[in-house]
Amino acid sequence: MNKTEIPDSFPSDPSGAFSLAVDGMGGDGAPEVVVAGLAIAAERHRDLRVLLIGDEARLQPLLAKYPRAAAVCTVWHTDVSIPMDMKPTQALRQRQSSMRLAMDAVASGRAQGVVSAGNSGAMLALAKIVIKTLPGISRPAMAAISPTVKGDVVMLDLGANVVCDWRNLVEFAVMGEAFAKAVLGLPAPTIGLLNIGSEELKGDEKLRVAAEMLRESPLAAQFHGFVEGHDITAGTTDVVVTDGFTGNVALKTGEGVLKMATTLLRRVFQSSVLAKIGYLLVRPGLERMKEWLDPRRYNGAVFVGLNGVVVKSHGGTDAEGFAAAVDVAMDMVTHGFNDSIRERLSHMGALLSRQKVAEEREVAVPVS
Amino acid sequence: MNKTEIPDSFPSDPSGAFSLAVDGMGGDGAPEVVVAGLAIAAERHRDLRVLLIGDEARLQPLLAKYPRAAAVCTVWHTDVSIPMDMKPTQALRQRQSSMRLAMDAVASGRAQGVVSAGNSGAMLALAKIVIKTLPGISRPAMAAISPTVKGDVVMLDLGANVVCDWRNLVEFAVMGEAFAKAVLGLPAPTIGLLNIGSEELKGDEKLRVAAEMLRESPLAAQFHGFVEGHDITAGTTDVVVTDGFTGNVALKTGEGVLKMATTLLRRVFQSSVLAKIGYLLVRPGLERMKEWLDPRRYNGAVFVGLNGVVVKSHGGTDAEGFAAAVDVAMDMVTHGFNDSIRERLSHMGALLSRQKVAEEREVAVPVS
Repeated sequence: MNKTEIPDSFPSDPSGAFSLAVDGMGGDGAPEVVVAGLAIAAERHRDLRVLLIGDEARLQPLLAKYPRAAAVCTVWHTDVSIPMDMKPTQALRQRQSSMRLAMDAVASGRAQGVVSAGNSGAMLALAKIVIKTLPGISRPAMAAISPTVKGDVVMLDLGANVVCDWRNLVEFAVMGEAFAKAVLGLPAPTIGLLNIGSEELKGDEKLRVAAEMLRESPLAAQFHGFVEGHDITAGTTDVVVTDGFTGNVALKTGEGVLKMATTLLRRVFQSSVLAKIGYLLVRPGLERMKEWLDPRRYNGAVFVGLNGVVVKSHGGTDAEGFAAAVDVAMDMVTHGFNDSIRERLSHMGALLSRQKVAEEREVAVPVS
Repeated sequence: MNKTEIPDSFPSDPSGAFSLAVDGMGGDGAPEVVVAGLAIAAERHRDLRVLLIGDEARLQPLLAKYPRAAAVCTVWHTDVSIPMDMKPTQALRQRQSSMRLAMDAVASGRAQGVVSAGNSGAMLALAKIVIKTLPGISRPAMAAISPTVKGDVVMLDLGANVVCDWRNLVEFAVMGEAFAKAVLGLPAPTIGLLNIGSEELKGDEKLRVAAEMLRESPLAAQFHGFVEGHDITAGTTDVVVTDGFTGNVALKTGEGVLKMATTLLRRVFQSSVLAKIGYLLVRPGLERMKEWLDPRRYNGAVFVGLNGVVVKSHGGTDAEGFAAAVDVAMDMVTHGFNDSIRERLSHMGALLSRQKVAEEREVAVPVS
């Protein structure tokens, strides 16, 4: 049987739509990490109703082991799962994969969002094709939450779009603002456009135009202007907007520096007997700091700009991290993330098309 | 008097060329930080002979205070200096500024290199116009040394070129390799090209071509291929090559993360009486870690690809930091940094023009 449509036997939630479709087989620790993560998340979200997709023979014993997860899950069986190293083009052909069926559930309205710890490239490709881009958005982006000295910052794009134009950047600002509202609970998040300092702007026309557009948009009061690399962790703005290449490099460079600091600090604490005793005394504070910087707190990287909530958990996460990804998805579902974007876009449509007319006029041969 | 040429009375070193022309008036702490820094550097470099340019009335008392600096310096007087916030275009018109005269000294062969803690934008603009680009190099770049868990890494470009093509990137690789040889003393530095992971390469044609060219070049054995953000501090390669926009963001993001870690750590050490005692016990190790990460150790940001050595010290540096910038300049002068670039380019010219021919052929209308 080569089913390409969602089968009639696709489980529907007797009490209404599922909150989330969860790929039970995605990630290094799947399926156990997924089920254990759902058990943790179920404690925090009373409304959580999950369509859990994967190999029933492996999922059922785990649901027996984690009754809190079992209480919120309906299992939909499939044998197929997408390996972590499969190319997106190949993954698209696996129409019965657990990841694909989870996307189908969102596309057909059976679930409001999808969470997977599986293959990122496959996930983005499937989301674009199955769930599709939100009307008015040119391209989906990848967003995530990072720690700052003050609180949290939302950064996007983190790699979905290597090359961007000003329109993409403006759309990222709209989506980032909606994300910060839904997930960080901020009433009016501030927005910064990542640059390398105002004087050196010449080469980057797209940044100049994007900034102009944002200053004229309904987001003007929340738009802080340009920010630089060090502003990300300084918490200068709640949202930092950039293209996918720069965002990805910034994110990974930051992770690298944090790892270096940790490595050097470990050496310090092991450098002498006194330092080892000192470590024991500061350990409670260090544990709190570690928790603050814990990547599991920030485990939900999100594909925004799609007709549904799509959250990617880190492939190597543990149950706590997977639960954090479910938290992010539930915040987005509960706080009407996409409605907030639609609302903004309806007020920005005129502005974006006015600029388009201006661009076309520039290209036209001038009348003497 | 409106002198536009170097005056005849321009001091010449009786024993030959000056090693460095130093802008005595550049930087927040000038001129004292400059003279004190030269005093420190004079201890470390026996061959150091400095043409110190600035306000004689302010420099002479300082040289009396720092006799070790006085022993290596010849003062050339000028009243004019370039403020830290002056625009490059305006700075170019100040033909008698201490920074300009220092550049003139290099252009006329009186000195081999220039060091200034002054206005960066002005310095790059002046260097391009007065000292000029090295034959075979399309555009100068800004390079600096950063700490890693293993040792040091050379990164470029850090902001001189916001938009780059593959040729610029290949040239950066050549210059970065020569810099790592001269300043880090590595016999065969390895080179990485900053990217966001091999799968997502499609959008960045310039990176793909640059990588191909490096694989065919005399640098092939040292070329590691693509690296990602986290590889910078992991010390995966000795040189990391990227465009000026990405490099600037990566550098500042890294600095920001390090600052955040320091802030959080300070809070930990002040969080309780026990933590304060713990801090005292680990302090010796922390001091060594601080020294390792000390920006003063890495205080020489360098403009590479010019007909002379051009080192920019941080504007807010202290004497130790200024001395570090002088160290970098002296390493480059002593170890024939530019000769090493010229040598490489002479072996790569054929490769670069072969590719040029290929590009032109692609553009031409195909003959059926």
